[in-house]
This record gives sequence, structure tokens and C-alpha cells, in this order.
Amino acid sequence: MVGLKVFGQPASTEVSRVLTCLFEKNLEFQLVRIDTFKKEHKIPEFLQLQDPSGQVTFREGDLTLIDSRKIIRHLCDKYADQGNKKLYGNGSLEKASIEQWLQAEAQNFGPPSAELVFHLAFAKPLGKEPNMSIIEENEKRLSDILDVYDQRLGKNAFLAGDEFTLADLSHLPNTHYLLTRCERGKKLFTERKNVARWVNDITNRESWKKVTEMQNEHPGPLEK
Amino acid sequence: MVGLKVFGQPASTEVSRVLTCLFEKNLEFQLVRIDTFKKEHKIPEFLQLQDPSGQVTFREGDLTLIDSRKIIRHLCDKYADQGNKKLYGNGSLEKASIEQWLQAEAQNFGPPSAELVFHLAFAKPLGKEPNMSIIEENEKRLSDILDVYDQRLGKNAFLAGDEFTLADLSHLPNTHYLLTRCERGKKLFTERKNVARWVNDITNRESWKKVTEMQNEHPGPLEK
Repeated sequence: MVGLKVFGQPASTEVSRVLTCLFEKNLEFQLVRIDTFKKEHKIPEFLQLQDPSGQVTFREGDLTLIDSRKIIRHLCDKYADQGNKKLYGNGSLEKASIEQWLQAEAQNFGPPSAELVFHLAFAKPLGKEPNMSIIEENEKRLSDILDVYDQRLGKNAFLAGDEFTLADLSHLPNTHYLLTRCERGKKLFTERKNVARWVNDITNRESWKKVTEMQNEHPGPLEK
Repeated sequence: MVGLKVFGQPASTEVSRVLTCLFEKNLEFQLVRIDTFKKEHKIPEFLQLQDPSGQVTFREGDLTLIDSRKIIRHLCDKYADQGNKKLYGNGSLEKASIEQWLQAEAQNFGPPSAELVFHLAFAKPLGKEPNMSIIEENEKRLSDILDVYDQRLGKNAFLAGDEFTLADLSHLPNTHYLLTRCERGKKLFTERKNVARWVNDITNRESWKKVTEMQNEHPGPLEK
């Protein structure tokens, strides 16, 4: 087997999405972290959390991918028989359902979540001013989406059915920051009964716990 | 300026020696850490502390060096006018004195220290049996050396004279592990008045504090 390599910092939501999938699939890989220490800086750059949208690069032999959601699909397709075999479904029907919610995450859940994570949790520690109108607008957008999720999760344990899949996994990075870094973000999840149960389930996956351990070693500006 | 790159883990005594010198010289550099995550392993490999003698690789353009003491000499020679300018002395007399104690560290202090660090602090957490006769033999060797140091440090603030130099810096990695990881190791330093004052001075350098912060993020088996 060609070695799998991930380049990036675990604090990045793009990187943590890929790491969670690698742990679920029980694949061997190398994580390459490159930290730049600048002159005159009292605090090494790597102790500051990157923008949550920080890049990830995945390499496997000649293949290079830089989109976390493409990378996790690739891993599940190529290593279908390893680790968690239900992550990307079996058969086209299951896959279609997973795809539907994967795309909901990428297109509907992801953008307002990332805006809220940035403005509620990271702007101030990074010396930037949170934009209140952006916060309100995206809070409304995310609320509407989570209402749909709450309905769906009243019928199924997980988004695509009765199993934890890539659809759920893909929500973890931004959900985690909203839950743990800002009360206002946390409330959006906890005030919805089915969503609250679901986030509790998915954030307690062993794979995700390993990733948060790695993130806690580079806690970012909020703990400074 | 060609970019300076260090490959390795801050927990390694070889790596931490080089990092301390880079911080003293206030040089910009990149630290590249490569961690392998194996299948079935519950704990990522990078959470386990490497053998304290773990390798370091330094690259600067076409130049590659793998001995920490050669690397710190190279940095001081090449970047004489940057950061701490007294680290490798000015003029041949000062340099000769620094060299004498640098070599004492490499040849006399280093080997018994490294044996004690391994057998007193790291053997058990790594699942190996500490060897009592090795401990006793090296404790005796280190005691004899520290008696010489104590005399010297009764006359000068630092090993090579009145300034903190590479000679002192080079002692930090093993000294730190002996002070913080085992009572029996700590006693060798604290029971000697001048040595005790000296280790307090050198372990409080800003450069070294930055390195220990980096090590604390990968605390190794003792904190598990």
C-alpha cells in the first residue's frame, strides 16, 4: 500500500474532517505539520489557531487532493473493506441518501456554521472585530437548517438512516467549535431535542475524540 | 536568506538543544513534525515520547546536519550578528573556553545524564525494566562531574565565564529531564549550591521556556 499523508494542523476544520475519516477507516497514515517560528514573535505561530478554514492537503502516491469532502469520499471508495464499512453505505440507495446529507452539509450547514465559528469564537482572539449583522444573519440561516435536521433526526438516529456515516462525520468540525467555543452557538444545537441527541452521539465517537485530543494540544487563542 | 528547517519532535533532547539555540539567535525557522498513526493503535504514536536521544535533522539550502551540537555551532558561526551575540563568544580566547565546556558536556556530562534520564524516567513508561547497576554507575559518574562543575560555578556565573553561552545551553535538555522527571536525578543538582544556582538561571531563559512549552504539548508517557 502506498503511504497516506495528510499535511495540515488538526485545529483546522478541513484537516479534522479528514483525520476523523482516517480513524474511522482504521487506516495507517502520516500527519505532517509544518510550523513557522518568526523572528521577534514571543508566541510561536503554531500556538495560534489558524483560521478554521485552514487548508488540508492529502497525498497518496501521485494523487493529491485538497478538498476535505473529496478526500473522505475517496478514502471510503478506495478502502471500502477496511475499518468502518458503513461509512459511505452499501449500494446505490444508501449512498444516495448519504450524498444528499453530505451535500446539505457542504452547501447549507457549512457556510453559516463557519461564519458563526469565525465571528463568535475566533475573531476577537485573532484581533478582529466580530460583525454583528453577519452573526445575526447566519444564526437565522443555521436555525432554519437545524429545524429541518431536527425533523429528520426525529425519524432516524442519524442523518442518512440508522448508521453513523460520512454525512454525520462531515458535520463534526464546525459543530464541535460551535458547541465548545460559544454559548450562542451551542444553544442552536441544545435547544432542539433531536439535534441535541444527535450531536451528543456523534461527538462521542472514538474517532472524533482522538481528533479533539490532537486539537487540545494546540488549543488556539481562546485558551491563551 | 535560505529558509532554516528543523525536522523532529521537541521532546527529543537533540531537537530541543537546536530549538533553544534558534530562539536565542532570534532566527526564523520552520519546524517539521511527522507523526505516524498506525492501524489499531488506540494512542497516536506522537503522544508517546520518543527515546530522549531521538534524532534531529537540520536543513539550510543544500546543507544537511544531524548532530545537534554541530548545528548550534553552525548557527552561531553563520548568524554571529543576530540575536544573542555572546552565545559563542567573541574572539578566540572566549571561544576556546566555551569549546572546552561544550566538549565536557558532549563527552562527560551527556552520556551519564542520558543513561540516567532513560533508566530513571523513561524506561518504565516505555515498558522496559530500569537497570539498577547502570543507574548506580552513572549516578556516580555524574556526581563526580558535577563536583567539578560546582567548583567552577563558584568562581563564574556560567561555565565559560560571566555570560550564558552555548556551553550552558547544551546542558539544558538532559538537565531539564533529570530535574523534572526523577527525584533522584534532581537531587544531584540541588544538593550542590553553585550548580543549583546555575541550573535555576539557565532553565529560566526565555528561549528554554519556549521549548518546554512545546514539549509540554507532547508530554510523553509520564503524564499518561
